[in-house]
Amino acid sequence: MTDRDDADRSDPDVGTAPNRNTLWARTLVGELDAAGVDAVCVAPGSRSTPLTVAFAERPDIEVFSHLDERSAAFFALGRAKRTGKPTPLVCTSGTAAANFHPAVIEANQARVPMLVLTADRPPELRDSGANQTIDQQKLYGDAVRWYADLPEPEPEARKLRSLRTTADRALAESTGTPPGPVHLNVPFRKPLEPVEVPGDVPADFAAEAPLGVEGRTRSDGLDGPFVRTARGRPELAGGDFREVRRAVESASRGLVVVGPADSPVHEGDAAAPDRDALSALAEATGFPVLADPLSGHRFGHDDGLLSGDGGDAANALLAGGYDGYLDAVAESWPDLEVVVRFGASPTSKVLRQYLEASDARQFLVDPAGGWREASFTATDLLTSDPTRLAENLAERVESSGSDDWRARFADAERRYWSLVSSAREERLFEGGVLSAVAADAPDPATVMVSNSMPIRDLDRFGEPRSADVTVLGNRGASGIDGIASTGLGAGSATDDPLVIVTGDLAYYHDMNGLLAVERSGVDATIVEVNNDGGGIFHMLPIEEFDPPFTDQFRTPHGLDYEATGDLYGLDFERVGELDAFRSTFRESVESAGTQVVEVTTDAEASHRFREQVADRVADRLE
Amino acid sequence: MTDRDDADRSDPDVGTAPNRNTLWARTLVGELDAAGVDAVCVAPGSRSTPLTVAFAERPDIEVFSHLDERSAAFFALGRAKRTGKPTPLVCTSGTAAANFHPAVIEANQARVPMLVLTADRPPELRDSGANQTIDQQKLYGDAVRWYADLPEPEPEARKLRSLRTTADRALAESTGTPPGPVHLNVPFRKPLEPVEVPGDVPADFAAEAPLGVEGRTRSDGLDGPFVRTARGRPELAGGDFREVRRAVESASRGLVVVGPADSPVHEGDAAAPDRDALSALAEATGFPVLADPLSGHRFGHDDGLLSGDGGDAANALLAGGYDGYLDAVAESWPDLEVVVRFGASPTSKVLRQYLEASDARQFLVDPAGGWREASFTATDLLTSDPTRLAENLAERVESSGSDDWRARFADAERRYWSLVSSAREERLFEGGVLSAVAADAPDPATVMVSNSMPIRDLDRFGEPRSADVTVLGNRGASGIDGIASTGLGAGSATDDPLVIVTGDLAYYHDMNGLLAVERSGVDATIVEVNNDGGGIFHMLPIEEFDPPFTDQFRTPHGLDYEATGDLYGLDFERVGELDAFRSTFRESVESAGTQVVEVTTDAEASHRFREQVADRVADRLE
Repeated sequence: MTDRDDADRSDPDVGTAPNRNTLWARTLVGELDAAGVDAVCVAPGSRSTPLTVAFAERPDIEVFSHLDERSAAFFALGRAKRTGKPTPLVCTSGTAAANFHPAVIEANQARVPMLVLTADRPPELRDSGANQTIDQQKLYGDAVRWYADLPEPEPEARKLRSLRTTADRALAESTGTPPGPVHLNVPFRKPLEPVEVPGDVPADFAAEAPLGVEGRTRSDGLDGPFVRTARGRPELAGGDFREVRRAVESASRGLVVVGPADSPVHEGDAAAPDRDALSALAEATGFPVLADPLSGHRFGHDDGLLSGDGGDAANALLAGGYDGYLDAVAESWPDLEVVVRFGASPTSKVLRQYLEASDARQFLVDPAGGWREASFTATDLLTSDPTRLAENLAERVESSGSDDWRARFADAERRYWSLVSSAREERLFEGGVLSAVAADAPDPATVMVSNSMPIRDLDRFGEPRSADVTVLGNRGASGIDGIASTGLGAGSATDDPLVIVTGDLAYYHDMNGLLAVERSGVDATIVEVNNDGGGIFHMLPIEEFDPPFTDQFRTPHGLDYEATGDLYGLDFERVGELDAFRSTFRESVESAGTQVVEVTTDAEASHRFREQVADRVADRLE
Repeated sequence: MTDRDDADRSDPDVGTAPNRNTLWARTLVGELDAAGVDAVCVAPGSRSTPLTVAFAERPDIEVFSHLDERSAAFFALGRAKRTGKPTPLVCTSGTAAANFHPAVIEANQARVPMLVLTADRPPELRDSGANQTIDQQKLYGDAVRWYADLPEPEPEARKLRSLRTTADRALAESTGTPPGPVHLNVPFRKPLEPVEVPGDVPADFAAEAPLGVEGRTRSDGLDGPFVRTARGRPELAGGDFREVRRAVESASRGLVVVGPADSPVHEGDAAAPDRDALSALAEATGFPVLADPLSGHRFGHDDGLLSGDGGDAANALLAGGYDGYLDAVAESWPDLEVVVRFGASPTSKVLRQYLEASDARQFLVDPAGGWREASFTATDLLTSDPTRLAENLAERVESSGSDDWRARFADAERRYWSLVSSAREERLFEGGVLSAVAADAPDPATVMVSNSMPIRDLDRFGEPRSADVTVLGNRGASGIDGIASTGLGAGSATDDPLVIVTGDLAYYHDMNGLLAVERSGVDATIVEVNNDGGGIFHMLPIEEFDPPFTDQFRTPHGLDYEATGDLYGLDFERVGELDAFRSTFRESVESAGTQVVEVTTDAEASHRFREQVADRVADRLE
């Protein structure tokens, strides 16, 4: 992280650039700055020199330098998840750009703003056998919202205006509905450094091309981006809205389901309603709200909504334990009649199967009109701003759902969470660790939770709390390939304590990302649940086939991660009991520096205990 | 690495497969086996279960299990570089496949056989919001030789024949001219495990579809692949050949330039002539041969060719020091008249600039007709098998080049290498390390050399030797992102001692690849030249601009790699002098287990010393 104390530095002057590359990069980066970009992730390289220099010379832009582009891209992803705006990524030409690909795909599917700037050789060197030259055009295929191959740098008035417009457009596309990645490919011809090239930029160029050179900041009193953008939000017209309202009003047994919607995201593009709107909807309809851990609603609602029996939302209930009990009660409970769904497909397979088996009318609400419902049982797709729809429904719905129906959920929640908290004390298992993290995370906190088991365990064992805990996960493509970096990127954007929960395979996969702890100055508590291999495979039928189960699926690696503490300057502590974990965890989140708290568990025993807990739930709730 | 001792295991029976996925995967993998595939790299995952199980159950296929797909793909790349045939790659759906992308690009540009098998969700789940589902179609764009989206598994005679044909075709395309990556996307619907699904595969299916089920192995006496392939090699027709011959014969000052052509590659697809043909060409024309360290010719030729004054090739000379002296002598030497170029663009910028500045007729010979000449001065592109062309020229060329011209090179070589070997003793610098590696590598040995400085240093300071040293490098896209894995993959295919030379940034970038040392049982000597950051940037004008030079370009990381020894179970030794390096290096290549020999150098001082050496060369040779 570059030290930003040098507050008296001023923005570099575009008009006096020593050569056309410097002119071009200063214009592009200056425009991004004017449009609100305040940080960048740079992977060192030669071809990207003009961009790197242009970012580094701007006092208002923080530069995060990363040596592994894969980790850099996930860091930028995490930061954007936490800030709602893109942190541009810069790399040199060649396979560096391909290393961004996993995070680009995650950004696409999780709808996270991202702006990828790949430096390229000049056009005549493409497909010529030139060194470190690959085909970077449309490198990420359909995974980006917008791709543009920039023209060759040139001191030309229209080109510079086009460049500023492109920068604004790239930001607008990446923060549109839905947000996502944008790729600008930026060719440069030597010299790449800010060396004086006599005559390359005409002496009077600033006078010739005032708009291109100055942007809006100084030329005409308009501060800010060259092109401002405003975008309306979709709202259902009268007839369409009435149809939803009638369906909701006529049902006594309804649910509001809020799937992953990583909050906070760019204002206005959230896939889920904001907290007030969701509370009002819950209150007005009386429908229980099932809140995914990644919905932004599992944590942070006030106690009334959580308990379903008090406060401002006496008529409402927020449920978080459904993944643990819904399959046990589904048969004996009366049929569901209507569902209003927000966000992506829920993490909970139990919930997905419950919805799939239901004949209920299912409204899928999405501001981008996304068809994200892979059981193909939704009856209505509503392209609408979720907050506006929730508010409108809350205002106009006149009869509310059945008290008995809500009481069933309230009772199941009470029983379930009491059972979970006693099970947690009984023996150390992975679910208990996530349960403890949910219970003990500071208020406020940012908690990044890995695929594949930790997020499922948080879903099942993380009890709703009023604490302002922002839970993040890479649930777009559900990879395990950038967990630490995503968490550290998110942490770089906030002073909230940062917690990262990862399994041992995900920890290994993004070990390089740990370099950001020191280089980016992020302070984290990294909970690493180590069962020496892919514990999730114990949940799958392949467990019965060994070989190849152990060698090819569980794949124990035997790595002793204590050495990663030495390598990256992290405190490393290993615990094997829940009490020890809780005290170490609490100590870590309160202390400076980054600690890795490794919890060693037995994947198979954890899996068996999960099954036992499920049996007890069934006994107690059926 | 799966233990292959169980030699009495037999191939699984396709016809009695418990379900259609098992049938499908057994057929595909069985066909790859029949066509000669003897190893696979598998990254654990759920969706790929049918493929993983099918590979694991075949006694003749060695399974390398990798936890990081990026490293897995470079391992497969390295293995293919050493064997000339693809080691298939298997991964689950999602971003796992995108992690292969950097190596796929390298395989494309370096022309290395590769077969990527990505498991996918069934077609109806694409773009549906289903978990861990991304758009895998044409994921690698134009970087592959062939892409196919396989149909859904089904016990159907034509489909099974098509599957066998596809497997053979994939291998043929990946080992064609030029070799390269092939991507098969393989969708599966649950159950993924080999569980019995009654009726899913008809009891008499083997009788119904004998060809599909059995392949050629047992059904009709034809052993081997379902479809054999034969491919002719391009040979110039009479008139075209005579034109080349005349140009060569009429020149007294000619050169044969052999660029990177990673040897050995798949027979018949080498971008450079084989050793005998090249020797014969050198002898017949009398033209000095300038051999890139990655050409397969810098090392392994007999002493006569090396010294230019004895043995079978008295009239020939193989030169390796040109990167060190050509710019010093170019002005004072007479003009070059003709060049016959093989392989990719030379690593040596000095050589490229020499050729660019010349008015010589430049014949570019490539079996795939590749236009790989980025200075755009080549006059003739010859699509021809290099070995056949070299043999034909050697047979028919009647007058030979000037003795004076060859003597200039011979003399320059003698002076240059004597100067290098005394400079090497003077002080430790990065070039001296590579010089020592070239001199001390065992005979035979496989030496993988990293971008960006080590390969340039080997080019300049690695003296030709008759020892059979196979030098490999990732010079297709010249990334630093998979160096250890590429080396370990190459090492997995041979009993030759394996040496990997890497800088500290490349070492960091592919640290995850070191897990293969233990998991794949490869024994290596890893020479890690540590100058704490990107030493190559000292060679560039950006060095003059600090900031941002140190923070954004040289990027010192301060990592103490001794901890990587603990993490991966490697012996770690740090040396700071050339003598200590040489003795540690020699000890390591002779001993079992993998040692990391870290040589700490000062990038700036090394760079200054390189400049000093260049000055001395100029003094001595001009």
